Amino acid sequence: MTLNPADPAFAARLRELLPEQAFRPVAPHYLEEPRGKWTGQAGLVVAPGSVDEVSRALRAAHEARVPVVPYGGGTGLVAAQVMREGPAPMLLSLERMSAIRGVYPEENVLVAEAGAILEDIHTAAEAEGRLFPLTIAAKGSARIGGNLATNAGGVNVLRYGNARDLCLGVEAVWPDGTIFNGLTRLRKDNTGYDLRNLLIGSEGTLGVITAAALKLAPMPAEVGTALLVVESPAAALKLLSLAQARAGGTVSAFELISGVGLEFLKEALPEMRRPFDPAPEWMVLIELGMAEGQDPQAMLESLFEAALEAGLADDGVIAQSGQQRTDLWEMREQIPEANRRIGGISSHDISLPLSEVPGFIEAAGAALRARGDYRVNCFGHLGDGNLHYNVFPTVGKTRADYPGEAAQLQAMVHDMVMARGGSFSAEHGVGRLKVDDLQRYGDKGKLSAMRAIKAALDPHGIMNPGAVLPLS
Amino acid sequence: MTLNPADPAFAARLRELLPEQAFRPVAPHYLEEPRGKWTGQAGLVVAPGSVDEVSRALRAAHEARVPVVPYGGGTGLVAAQVMREGPAPMLLSLERMSAIRGVYPEENVLVAEAGAILEDIHTAAEAEGRLFPLTIAAKGSARIGGNLATNAGGVNVLRYGNARDLCLGVEAVWPDGTIFNGLTRLRKDNTGYDLRNLLIGSEGTLGVITAAALKLAPMPAEVGTALLVVESPAAALKLLSLAQARAGGTVSAFELISGVGLEFLKEALPEMRRPFDPAPEWMVLIELGMAEGQDPQAMLESLFEAALEAGLADDGVIAQSGQQRTDLWEMREQIPEANRRIGGISSHDISLPLSEVPGFIEAAGAALRARGDYRVNCFGHLGDGNLHYNVFPTVGKTRADYPGEAAQLQAMVHDMVMARGGSFSAEHGVGRLKVDDLQRYGDKGKLSAMRAIKAALDPHGIMNPGAVLPLS
Repeated sequence: MTLNPADPAFAARLRELLPEQAFRPVAPHYLEEPRGKWTGQAGLVVAPGSVDEVSRALRAAHEARVPVVPYGGGTGLVAAQVMREGPAPMLLSLERMSAIRGVYPEENVLVAEAGAILEDIHTAAEAEGRLFPLTIAAKGSARIGGNLATNAGGVNVLRYGNARDLCLGVEAVWPDGTIFNGLTRLRKDNTGYDLRNLLIGSEGTLGVITAAALKLAPMPAEVGTALLVVESPAAALKLLSLAQARAGGTVSAFELISGVGLEFLKEALPEMRRPFDPAPEWMVLIELGMAEGQDPQAMLESLFEAALEAGLADDGVIAQSGQQRTDLWEMREQIPEANRRIGGISSHDISLPLSEVPGFIEAAGAALRARGDYRVNCFGHLGDGNLHYNVFPTVGKTRADYPGEAAQLQAMVHDMVMARGGSFSAEHGVGRLKVDDLQRYGDKGKLSAMRAIKAALDPHGIMNPGAVLPLS
Repeated sequence: MTLNPADPAFAARLRELLPEQAFRPVAPHYLEEPRGKWTGQAGLVVAPGSVDEVSRALRAAHEARVPVVPYGGGTGLVAAQVMREGPAPMLLSLERMSAIRGVYPEENVLVAEAGAILEDIHTAAEAEGRLFPLTIAAKGSARIGGNLATNAGGVNVLRYGNARDLCLGVEAVWPDGTIFNGLTRLRKDNTGYDLRNLLIGSEGTLGVITAAALKLAPMPAEVGTALLVVESPAAALKLLSLAQARAGGTVSAFELISGVGLEFLKEALPEMRRPFDPAPEWMVLIELGMAEGQDPQAMLESLFEAALEAGLADDGVIAQSGQQRTDLWEMREQIPEANRRIGGISSHDISLPLSEVPGFIEAAGAALRARGDYRVNCFGHLGDGNLHYNVFPTVGKTRADYPGEAAQLQAMVHDMVMARGGSFSAEHGVGRLKVDDLQRYGDKGKLSAMRAIKAALDPHGIMNPGAVLPLS
C-alpha cells in the first residue's frame, strides 16, 4: 500500500479543516519513547479539540493516504507511538481532549475524554468517594486513550481487571473519519458486535478512541498491606489460593518480589528502606481492600499465621501505619528504576497459566545458568500469571559485555513461555517492538482474521502503519 | 449475495468429509424456539465431533455458498437459532462436542467444548470446590457455546460479569473453515486484536466457537439471602449503594421484584409460597456470598436495620435456612413462568444507566396509563440496570383483546429507553427478532463497522444469514 507523507500540501489542507490551536510544533517529546531506543518522525502534529475535529483530520488523512500515529501520553514501552520508517506521518495528539465529561457516583461510572491524564481520573473519582482502579507507574503522564488503546494492566488487575474490564463504552473515530458513538454507560448491552473491545488493545491501528465511559468501584474503606517471605514461587501461588479462600474478592494486589530485586535496590538506590537484609529469595506483597467495619489487619495476621503453619511463609512484615504501607509499595514501585540503573541485557513482559509459573521460573533459570553468568530479576503480578522476567549482567559486568545476546535471550525466553501456553506480551502490547514475535508465535487463524479486519476498517492502511501488524 | 440450499448434492459432498455419526435427522426440536412463534428450516443437520470436523463442514459450506445456522441448546429468546427464510441451511449442532476438557482449580479455570451443557459445567466446577458463576433459567439445556455466542447474562452478572467477562479464550472456526486457536488460559495477553470478544455476542454470524477457557471463582463459603420491601425503585438503588458500601464485592445478586409479579404468581401458580400477602409494590432480593469465617446473616441484619433507619426499606425477610433461601429464589425464578401463563402483550429486555432507571419506570408507567388499561410486570437485574419490562392485559382481558398493539408498545418502550441512553436488548441479543430495532436505533458508525467486519470475515455471507444484520 502506498502512503504519502504529511507534507506542506497536506498541512495546508488540514489548516482549512481545523482551527489554529489544533496545530502544534513537532517538539522532540512527540518523537521519543521511554526506553530511549527508538526515535520517531512526524510531518506535523495536530491536537484536535473535539471528536468532530478528529473526524475531519482522519478523513483528510484517509483521502490523502497519509499515515496517522495516534498519540496519548507517550509512555508506551513497545514503540507503538513512534513511527521511524516510511513517509512522515501526521501525529494526532489527544492532549487537548482532556476533560472529565462527567462523574456518576451512583452508577459507579466516569466519562472522560481520551486525553485525560490517568491520575486526573483518579482524583476526579476520589472526589466522589470512588476508586478508578487502573494504575500504572506512568499514571502522572499516561492518558486514558492510550491506556485503552494498549489495554493497560498494572497492580490492581487481579481484583478489578485490566483497562478492557474497566471500560463500558467508547466514542471513537474510524480511519475514514466516521464517528462511532458507543459511549454507553450501560452494564449490559447485547446489540451487535463488540467494537469497543476490538478498539481496546488495537494500539491505534483500527481507529482513534476519543472518549470512554469507565467503571468506578467503591473506595475500599480499610486497607491492609503485608510483605511475606515465601519459600518459592510455588509456595507463593498456594498462598494466593489461601488468601483468596479467606479474604474472598478483597485481595487487591499480589505481587511477587525476588531477592535479586532487593539487592538491585540496595545497589542502585541505597537510600531506600529495605524490609529485609540480607534479602530472602522470594517475597510477596499482598494488599487487601475491605469495606467499612472489616479488619484487613486482623485478616492479614491470621493469613500470616496460617501461612506459617502450612509452611508457605517463614517471615513477614504487616504494615502498621500508612507510612509503612507507602514504604512497602515504594519498594515495589522502585524496582523498575533500579533495573534501569543496573542496565538489563533483555527484559520480558510475559504471562503464563498460573500453574505453569513455578515450572517456567525453574526451567528458565536453569537454561540461563547453563548458558553463562547472568542475574535474573523476576517480579510482577503473580496473581495474573504476569511476570516481568528481566536478565542482567552478573556482578562486575555491564550489558556491553554481552554483545548481541539480547535477541538470543529474548528468543530463548519467549520460546519457553510459548511452549507452556504463555504470552510474549502480557500487558505492554505489541507495538513495533514485538511485531516479529507476533508473526512468529501468533496463531495462523488469528493473524489472518486480524489482517482481514484491518483491511476492512482501514483499507488504505493509514492507521499507525507498522504497529501490531507488519507493513504490507 | 446469492446462497444455495443445503440440498442432496451438498449433503453428498459432506458425507465425503464427515463420518456417519456426524449426521442427524432433521428433528422438529432443531427448528423450534422457546417462544413458539417462529419455525426454522434446515436442509440437513450435522453434529461434528471435533474442531477439525467443524472446519471441514464450514469450508464445504463456504465453497458451496450454503447458509449455516450454528446450534447450541436452542434456548435463545430472539430467534437467532431459527432461519425461516431463504435457502434451507445446514444446521450445525455442537451437541457432540460436549466434553469438559479440563478443570484447573489452582488457576480457577475450566476448559469446555462448546456443546457442554451449562449445568454440567457448574457440576464439574463444584466437584473441585469452584463456582462457574454464569447461570440462567435454561441452564439444564443451554450449551456454553450458545451462552458465549449470545453473551448470556443472568442473576450473577452484578458480581461476576456476563459470559464475556467469564471467558479467557476461545477455539473457533472462521466461516471459510480456518481454525482459530485462541484457547488460552491466560489472565493477561496483549498480543493483537481481541477476536475472542468479537466472536462473543456475534450470535453465530462471524464464526463458530468450538471450545472455551472459562473463569471460575472460589465457591462462597457462606451465603445469605434476604427479600426487602422498598418504597420505590429509587430507594432500591440507594439500598444497592448502601449494600455495596457495607458488603463490598460480596453482593452477588440484587433483583428487583414488583408486587405485580407476586400477584401473577398468586394468579398463575397459586400453590407457590409467597412471603408477603397482600404484595407490596416493590421488593429487592439480595444475596451475599462470603468467604470462610464471615457472616452474611449478620451483615444482612445490619443492612436491614440501616435501611429501615434510612427509610429505604419498611419490611423484610431474611432467610433463616437453606429451604427459605430456596423458596425466595424459587419465587424469583418462577416469575417468567407466571408471565407466560398470564400471557403478555409485549415484553422488553432493556437496560438503562442506573441513575435513569427510576425515571424510566415512572415515565413508562405514566405513558401506559395514558394509553389504556394494562398491567406491567417490571422485574430483573436492577444492579446491572437490566429490567424485564413486560406489559400484560388488565384483569379480565387477554392479549387477544389488544390486537396489533405489541409492535406499537415495543416501539413506545424502546423509544423511551433509547432516549435515556439505554439498550433495547440488554442480555438476550439481537437474533432475528430485533434486527429492525438495531437498524433503527443503532449508531451509524457502529453499523457501518459491523457490516465491514462481517464482509471481511464472511465474504459469502453464509453464517446465520438474517441474524443481527439484515439480509443484504
